[in-house]
Amino acid sequence: MSTDQHPDFFARHVDLLHQAVERTLDRGYWTPYPETPSASAYGAGAPELGEACFRDLLDRRFPLDGHPANGTVAAAEVSPYGFPLGVSYPHLVPEVAVATARSAATTWRATSPDVRAGVAAEILARLNASSFEIAHAVQHTTGQPFMMAFQAGGPHAQDRGLEAVAHAWQEQKRHPGTARWNKPQDKGGPLVMDKTFTPVGRGVSVLIACNTFPTWNGYPGLFASLATGNPVVIKPHRRAVLPLAITVRIAREVLAEAGFDPNVVLLAASRSDERTAPALATHPDVRIVDFTGSREFGDWLEANALQAAVHTEKAGLNTVVVDSTDDYAGLLRNLAFSLALYSGQMCTTPQNIFVPRDGFPTDQGPRTADEFARDLGTALDKLLGNPARAAAILGAVVNGGVLDRLNQATALDRTAHPSRELTYPDHPDAVVRTPLVARLDPKTDEDIYTTEWFGPVSFVIATDSTAHSLQLLHDTVRRHGALTASVYASDDAVLEAARQTALDAGVHLSENLTGGVFVNQSAAFSDFHGTAANPAANAALTDPAFVTGRFSVLQSRRHVPAKEQVHA
Amino acid sequence: MSTDQHPDFFARHVDLLHQAVERTLDRGYWTPYPETPSASAYGAGAPELGEACFRDLLDRRFPLDGHPANGTVAAAEVSPYGFPLGVSYPHLVPEVAVATARSAATTWRATSPDVRAGVAAEILARLNASSFEIAHAVQHTTGQPFMMAFQAGGPHAQDRGLEAVAHAWQEQKRHPGTARWNKPQDKGGPLVMDKTFTPVGRGVSVLIACNTFPTWNGYPGLFASLATGNPVVIKPHRRAVLPLAITVRIAREVLAEAGFDPNVVLLAASRSDERTAPALATHPDVRIVDFTGSREFGDWLEANALQAAVHTEKAGLNTVVVDSTDDYAGLLRNLAFSLALYSGQMCTTPQNIFVPRDGFPTDQGPRTADEFARDLGTALDKLLGNPARAAAILGAVVNGGVLDRLNQATALDRTAHPSRELTYPDHPDAVVRTPLVARLDPKTDEDIYTTEWFGPVSFVIATDSTAHSLQLLHDTVRRHGALTASVYASDDAVLEAARQTALDAGVHLSENLTGGVFVNQSAAFSDFHGTAANPAANAALTDPAFVTGRFSVLQSRRHVPAKEQVHA
Repeated sequence: MSTDQHPDFFARHVDLLHQAVERTLDRGYWTPYPETPSASAYGAGAPELGEACFRDLLDRRFPLDGHPANGTVAAAEVSPYGFPLGVSYPHLVPEVAVATARSAATTWRATSPDVRAGVAAEILARLNASSFEIAHAVQHTTGQPFMMAFQAGGPHAQDRGLEAVAHAWQEQKRHPGTARWNKPQDKGGPLVMDKTFTPVGRGVSVLIACNTFPTWNGYPGLFASLATGNPVVIKPHRRAVLPLAITVRIAREVLAEAGFDPNVVLLAASRSDERTAPALATHPDVRIVDFTGSREFGDWLEANALQAAVHTEKAGLNTVVVDSTDDYAGLLRNLAFSLALYSGQMCTTPQNIFVPRDGFPTDQGPRTADEFARDLGTALDKLLGNPARAAAILGAVVNGGVLDRLNQATALDRTAHPSRELTYPDHPDAVVRTPLVARLDPKTDEDIYTTEWFGPVSFVIATDSTAHSLQLLHDTVRRHGALTASVYASDDAVLEAARQTALDAGVHLSENLTGGVFVNQSAAFSDFHGTAANPAANAALTDPAFVTGRFSVLQSRRHVPAKEQVHA
Repeated sequence: MSTDQHPDFFARHVDLLHQAVERTLDRGYWTPYPETPSASAYGAGAPELGEACFRDLLDRRFPLDGHPANGTVAAAEVSPYGFPLGVSYPHLVPEVAVATARSAATTWRATSPDVRAGVAAEILARLNASSFEIAHAVQHTTGQPFMMAFQAGGPHAQDRGLEAVAHAWQEQKRHPGTARWNKPQDKGGPLVMDKTFTPVGRGVSVLIACNTFPTWNGYPGLFASLATGNPVVIKPHRRAVLPLAITVRIAREVLAEAGFDPNVVLLAASRSDERTAPALATHPDVRIVDFTGSREFGDWLEANALQAAVHTEKAGLNTVVVDSTDDYAGLLRNLAFSLALYSGQMCTTPQNIFVPRDGFPTDQGPRTADEFARDLGTALDKLLGNPARAAAILGAVVNGGVLDRLNQATALDRTAHPSRELTYPDHPDAVVRTPLVARLDPKTDEDIYTTEWFGPVSFVIATDSTAHSLQLLHDTVRRHGALTASVYASDDAVLEAARQTALDAGVHLSENLTGGVFVNQSAAFSDFHGTAANPAANAALTDPAFVTGRFSVLQSRRHVPAKEQVHA
């Protein structure tokens, strides 16, 4: 692959790549992709142009030049804001997808880690330039409010992608391409060998993406696999194809410009009546799987896709322990926002809130568990009282499953604060619900709170004490998993106990969040998302373990003739 | 764990650790442990003292102070050189082993990567000082000749252990322990958080060791798991307990001196009539498994120990492709030595030698496949003609399974060069056999050469051409795996084709070995052993992927009060 005939994307992005590697190491704040959806950050007209691009995509066949197809997937996506997108996609059956990806990858696999990192960085740059188009696609497939769709679906997802590229690039370059081995001998001259070390991708990679965060959760696996020399077949959720179709379009453009076969990245959209993920994930030529979704299917993949390195982000029981606070108003504001954000449809939304039954101290006086549940309800009402603000926080309910669970939670008849229906004037057909808060007890309600209620459902659970709360955090997270844990305590000893509990349970901990950072948030280059240390995920976004299984370092060695040896 | 009351092993070994990390990166020749079994390298009297220590162990209960036991494993080991060792060991059932290890690990898990690396390096230093004792134990459990037992069982195994410590130490220290995250806001002051990052071991680690290289193949997993904060239960092969019992004794001594619970390392010897490895490997609290042994059980572990990170080194069809040579005598000498070394009982011994049927060019004129098989037999006879030299190369047959396979190979009636029985004057009861070479054909004998014949059995297989040989290398290795591949060719284009074939098949390649390096050998800090890219192994010794799955980095984060923020 001569770079003479093609743009040198590595040269264009090498400084960015070095910086990205540095920032994965120091874990401070950093992003190259502006998170503000403004013309000042993205250029005059960018917001309008992005929206127009999105509108242009509707009610037609999605443009993917030269993409293989076994027919067409009929337009089936419906915006949670209440209109059909009308986009149809190429249909690709698993056998063809895997075979096409495999044969397309020969030169991609053989080129250098530098060239691949450059191509990946260029794809990310163009995804960033398309952030408005992607934001609308994310909003109208996931139901996220626009600001979140822009940030989480655009620049923050791109951050996670670049983070994966940085790790992948660094790990492949960890060992030299060549080395001379010079072993002294007791008798005679040394044994001298020249060795080569070549990172080689593991094989076809399959990305099984989710409905709620198709890009944020999808980019790490996509870019980690690409950068390590593997072709990627993207199997989108059937309700959230569009953001990944745009991603595939851009990736293929860049690959082709760089002189590679664009089929290194494929979209494997499936029909509503077929379930292709199991066949894709267990295909003998598929050697890497990345998955975000249900605990059930994630566990199935781990147990069945044995021919592949499987990376899963499933779900769990995100937990808050309340012990005490000197900023009760801040606690309520922060927690209410965490419950309400995107209608609780985040894998990081707190579900189980453990509170001492008989009360805990606050700067506004003690609160019992019942009082706290009422106060949290009041804080939710206050947060969501203004309809425009409510829309900007809640977004819309992504699918009927969430609504079903909310109805089941209501039927439990343990409601401390009910869910309300809202109507958005701009989107009268959007299904909108505020969070429900129920009051549970550990002894009688274990079946309820040890089940995941993905959506706007949370529980205030009355415990005997903070020690009891921490014990429950530990036991439930070890058994059922969690992506987030949070503690409120003014006493250092309690915070220390919470840290030890979280370390032992294998979950990341946020302490005393009362300001502008929420437990749902996970910033690339600083926060790890998932730990691989509890059942909610078998991988973290993104660390070296996330990339090292995607390639092997293969070696060759040969003697160096005496005449070519230089003795020191 | 205060280092005030305990020796500071980290300070003692920190220079060595830094050097080891550097050498994993540059892949040149390096070892801190002398490979020559001499008094000059190991001190006056060291050889005699080591042998005396070994003799002292025989015919009694193995001394493991304070080691838990559920009774005693009767003395069952018999030296392949023809005498019973008479050593009995504590018997430990899986449930007790795992529970004891788990509860012993609390402080080990909580201490720092530095402290753990220091303890690991001290264990290695004392193992090195005991290299003669270990060498005798290895010789009389595996049947290796003494020189190999010393080198591979002692310093080379210690090299591999230190290499694993270096990777584990570096990976855990890759991220800072703390970081400040400072995110500018459009309005108001920045969001500032302090974060901690703590590497936490995954859980109980089980090492299932093999009969032939209990220490060389066992130390990487043992030390990688220890250094990343995990307790290790060592399940030795029932015929090769002693070398690992010595290892456990030394590890426990150092752990106790450093102030840790010695039960962080346990020996789980089993009775001859029980098979404990499956129960150990699938115990829910076991989170890491390291295995060396049969393809069958390795595949079983990968498919069944789903709760654990499983690292396997199984077996395969090590392959040689002969195309041409300008040093035919060197080729024959080198290859004969590779076949004979330790009676071919190495996971790296060549089995399938592909040769063009109608001949290949050499500096001594062309040779057909039949002529080559005869010449190889002659080279074996020459190499093993002197009885003392033969003993130093062949060692003894490790167990009856090897002998059975050799008899089956003889019964194939395709022998080009027969195996001979030898008798060692010093060890008249040792079972000794020279390598058998059989002549096969790809069309009729596929079933034979696609089966692994672990032991002194190799095949010269006549192909249509070198291209055909490379195709067979590719296909058999992809399907059945291999730990080594080797090519002889004087033409650069053929060598390049062989490299591409090996990259595609996922196997390391040695080219034109005619001197003092053999394809069986794999030097720590330079050569990778295994690739994870073919079915012979799902891990490589030792690279970052070998350690990254053994721990998670867990995070906590909190706001920094405005008064504690320092603005640049």
